[in-house]
Amino acid sequence: MERRPITTVDVVLLTLHEAQLAVALTTRTAEPFKGLLALPGGYVHVEQDQDSLQSARRVLLEKTGIKAPYLEQLYSFAGAARDPRGWSVSITYYALVPSSALEAATAGAISLTAVDDIGQLPFDHSQIVAAAVRRVRDKSSYSSLPCHLLPSRFTLAELQSTYEQVMGEKLDKSSFRRKLAALDFLEPVRGELKSGAHRPAQLYRVRKTRSLVVFDKTM
Amino acid sequence: MERRPITTVDVVLLTLHEAQLAVALTTRTAEPFKGLLALPGGYVHVEQDQDSLQSARRVLLEKTGIKAPYLEQLYSFAGAARDPRGWSVSITYYALVPSSALEAATAGAISLTAVDDIGQLPFDHSQIVAAAVRRVRDKSSYSSLPCHLLPSRFTLAELQSTYEQVMGEKLDKSSFRRKLAALDFLEPVRGELKSGAHRPAQLYRVRKTRSLVVFDKTM
Repeated sequence: MERRPITTVDVVLLTLHEAQLAVALTTRTAEPFKGLLALPGGYVHVEQDQDSLQSARRVLLEKTGIKAPYLEQLYSFAGAARDPRGWSVSITYYALVPSSALEAATAGAISLTAVDDIGQLPFDHSQIVAAAVRRVRDKSSYSSLPCHLLPSRFTLAELQSTYEQVMGEKLDKSSFRRKLAALDFLEPVRGELKSGAHRPAQLYRVRKTRSLVVFDKTM
Repeated sequence: MERRPITTVDVVLLTLHEAQLAVALTTRTAEPFKGLLALPGGYVHVEQDQDSLQSARRVLLEKTGIKAPYLEQLYSFAGAARDPRGWSVSITYYALVPSSALEAATAGAISLTAVDDIGQLPFDHSQIVAAAVRRVRDKSSYSSLPCHLLPSRFTLAELQSTYEQVMGEKLDKSSFRRKLAALDFLEPVRGELKSGAHRPAQLYRVRKTRSLVVFDKTM
């Protein structure tokens, strides 16, 4: 029989933290790289997991206490050089969640680090995070993806600020509003306004049907 | 040690055949599904392959005689149910090639089948082909991807016809020309015209820098 590669899953859980796109890292409790911060990940358990998505959900829960948000497959990193234990496959997943979703994390389990500031992580985890950020920034330019970072109701100003934090750049307000109109995935929440320092602002939510269509655009 | 899944690669090689988007299938020479048409695929060889892309290139060459076109990773299909031999991972790749590239195929090795007419293939290969077609059609709507199906120089009419065959629908000529102008990836080949039944038509090619930028848009 052929020698089989090691098969793992790794999860890139993204949120907004201190007004920046940040990734949830966990401290490795076993060798290799014991004690270092890395992506939550682990072996596929063939007796237990029906498929790799289930592996990713299980590993995320075990390592962080966080229950499956909507995970999307990112890419598979597979080769002889990426893991000191030998030829390995990592099927990677990513998700965007509002920071409130991370309150469910087991105390002290996760460390939030700005994606532009992760430095060198164990294995090829820096590359995996970079690929996730590239995918998210790219998709965000034509979809409702960043809405997953917000609570279910938000103002247009909050939405623009979220897109800006994801993209890592300021956006022109009127071009942003034109793009929103073209993508057509929002609906106002009738009779709900957010009051604050300024005049009350209309609250919006993502239309159910549209969010799926747009989010699944490239697979 | 954990029980490890089977790890394979499968390649979706797409081309135009009889004016339709078609996939190259090969006859399986071993069980399971011996004698049936399926995607060219095989085990990752950990002693031989540096990474999964190299596995895909090797398998494609062994099964079809065709040397590595530009392969892009599609998705990983991984679970307990997809292969009768047990829990398995297939890291899948796809490529678009001009039909002339298939002349290098070992005699009789490949069978070209229209993607809308593949029916039920072994394993989850029908799903893999469907995912590749969805990816290609989606990307084609905003990129130069279909140019990989053409020879290096082509007329705008040939290009439109290629997009139509990929998308499986007729396109309005003036909207198509506007989109081309917006994507801005073509350059005329100075002094070269194609003569035919009608008046001579200007030949174009993809600008080197643009083709990479656009093609790599989502990873």
